[in-house]
Amino acid sequence: MKIKTELINFPEGLDLDSGDRLDSFELMVESYGELNESKTNAILVCHAFSGNHHVSGENSERETGWWDEIVGPNKAIDINKYYVVCCNNLGGCSGSSGPKSINPSTKKAYGGNFPLVSVSDWVNSQKMLLDKLDIPFWSFVVGGSLGGMQALQWSIAYPDKVKKVGIFAAAARSSTQNIAMNEVARESIRKDQNFHNGNYIEHDVIPKNGIKTARMLGHITYLSERHMDLRFGRKFQDDNSKVDHEVDFEVENYLQYKGDKFSEIFDANTYILMTKAMDGYDAAGVSGKLDRSLKKVTAQFLIIGFYSDWLYPPERGKEIQIAAMNNNIKSSYVVLEGEHGHDSFLFASDKYAKIIEKFIQS
Amino acid sequence: MKIKTELINFPEGLDLDSGDRLDSFELMVESYGELNESKTNAILVCHAFSGNHHVSGENSERETGWWDEIVGPNKAIDINKYYVVCCNNLGGCSGSSGPKSINPSTKKAYGGNFPLVSVSDWVNSQKMLLDKLDIPFWSFVVGGSLGGMQALQWSIAYPDKVKKVGIFAAAARSSTQNIAMNEVARESIRKDQNFHNGNYIEHDVIPKNGIKTARMLGHITYLSERHMDLRFGRKFQDDNSKVDHEVDFEVENYLQYKGDKFSEIFDANTYILMTKAMDGYDAAGVSGKLDRSLKKVTAQFLIIGFYSDWLYPPERGKEIQIAAMNNNIKSSYVVLEGEHGHDSFLFASDKYAKIIEKFIQS
Repeated sequence: MKIKTELINFPEGLDLDSGDRLDSFELMVESYGELNESKTNAILVCHAFSGNHHVSGENSERETGWWDEIVGPNKAIDINKYYVVCCNNLGGCSGSSGPKSINPSTKKAYGGNFPLVSVSDWVNSQKMLLDKLDIPFWSFVVGGSLGGMQALQWSIAYPDKVKKVGIFAAAARSSTQNIAMNEVARESIRKDQNFHNGNYIEHDVIPKNGIKTARMLGHITYLSERHMDLRFGRKFQDDNSKVDHEVDFEVENYLQYKGDKFSEIFDANTYILMTKAMDGYDAAGVSGKLDRSLKKVTAQFLIIGFYSDWLYPPERGKEIQIAAMNNNIKSSYVVLEGEHGHDSFLFASDKYAKIIEKFIQS
Repeated sequence: MKIKTELINFPEGLDLDSGDRLDSFELMVESYGELNESKTNAILVCHAFSGNHHVSGENSERETGWWDEIVGPNKAIDINKYYVVCCNNLGGCSGSSGPKSINPSTKKAYGGNFPLVSVSDWVNSQKMLLDKLDIPFWSFVVGGSLGGMQALQWSIAYPDKVKKVGIFAAAARSSTQNIAMNEVARESIRKDQNFHNGNYIEHDVIPKNGIKTARMLGHITYLSERHMDLRFGRKFQDDNSKVDHEVDFEVENYLQYKGDKFSEIFDANTYILMTKAMDGYDAAGVSGKLDRSLKKVTAQFLIIGFYSDWLYPPERGKEIQIAAMNNNIKSSYVVLEGEHGHDSFLFASDKYAKIIEKFIQS
């Protein structure tokens, strides 16, 4: 399987939603398969909050891509037929310009001074990537969760540059409770003694504890309550394999373990920036009316929700479907069982894979 | 209205579930109304996680009791007719022996060395209080949330000492998700640089940030998603009244404010201890079967759940109701709308108040 990973420079820079400007930026881009001669087979995959450009197969560090169950040779998104592209989002921590990058004007890491970016900024940077790759349009833009928000935004911002969009386990905007949960996560990071107002790189420390707590909370919201119950129940952790002596229950041990691992690889400023982008996104735009913001959409919609998802439950997908119907957008709305709560969008069930495959081919 | 607040000493001490022993302890007790001559009108109110002994009316600091809407003269629990008693739970931070108290054997604050206590320990200490007050039985033991767990445990542990129990917004045991959420809260406290393994009093500091984050998370679980949405939606906080410049949305500001206030009054060790007690409680006991553990119960049950409660949703009350029916326990199970999510048990609606009143009089 051919994986191409490259860092692409955009010296032209980008004006951001916030009013700030990046004078130049880089995107870490991974691609799979081949662009056909007529350039009609390009698919953009947008990653969710903690994902990155590495979607499928094994990379040089032998890590499997985050959507390997869906994207690959002869899979639902078939790289034997399609040219699949994914970039680490601006502000991320996997190679694209972000808080860990060197600010060209100060020669120091941006840290807490990296500007806030929005879902709309990401889509704008991906449009610049489309142009740089000399592709006339995406045949499909797809993502789950925060990635689904980007797919939706593509259909709104660049109606003539995308034919179909896949919006999975997502919403047109975050709910009050979503925002509240994210704020607790951010608070735990900001109040870590090693955070230093985001400038921890200068101090040669990492706010590991804060990221860990944030991720533990995140995990609870990604899993379904039933799945957690079936998997862990009220089972006690045996003494020999406790990650911490404070732990009693298996579920505590699991969260501690997951939080610890994540805190070693993910950047705290990116955590804050990505969740702020998620909270701030509202596909309804300034009018506040989703019906109105979808007026110019020409892409077909595939909206998928999962019953076990309590972060962006199926009703949130239905809101998009209704607005799509009000605008005569060709759209399909499917709700699947999903065993994994919000994370269900990551895993290929037969039904899920088949629906995606059929939609792309339709 | 007559409020009597007293610190009662138990020099006989208590053997705890954990195997530890308190050689002596004190309970801060508040009572309302008068015990009648036949001693048949005593009611024990059990407080939830962050409550204390001050249930009704204004205390000397002009603070209104936490269940003032339900308990008082001519209210659902009528102190003109009943003698109502509530104590701050052992391990609490409102006057009863707890982590802030001086350990008689070391002459220093217990801090992180205060032993773990359980719901069962609390009920045992309340039984000692019953004896000390020379009352033959409680006509009613009642509480919401963690208080409801104590009421249930009373019916199991001392069947001949309680005539009726009221179990509101509670469960026979916490769910995996409940435990997971509590562990995130505890983690944020333990990792506060000022926690010092629970011995922060010695260091003359308070792990304020950790308690604040924990409480912010708690608040999300206490409120209903719908209520949060109606109250805050996606409204932005105006710049003049932001508690912190990092805040964008009103809901963030609210959580920040609530968390801050709570962190000034609540003890971090008590937070950990109370949530551990909540997580550890299982009314099914060692058999793991609630049906079996209710075999000797003679008290009547009033079980109330609230549709908007997602922490201990109505199904959790139904499990108790089913086990009660299997044991021919006289029981009523009512599910009310409740506007306030889990916190609904604190507020008197007409229906809610009437149901409690009728049950006590029945």
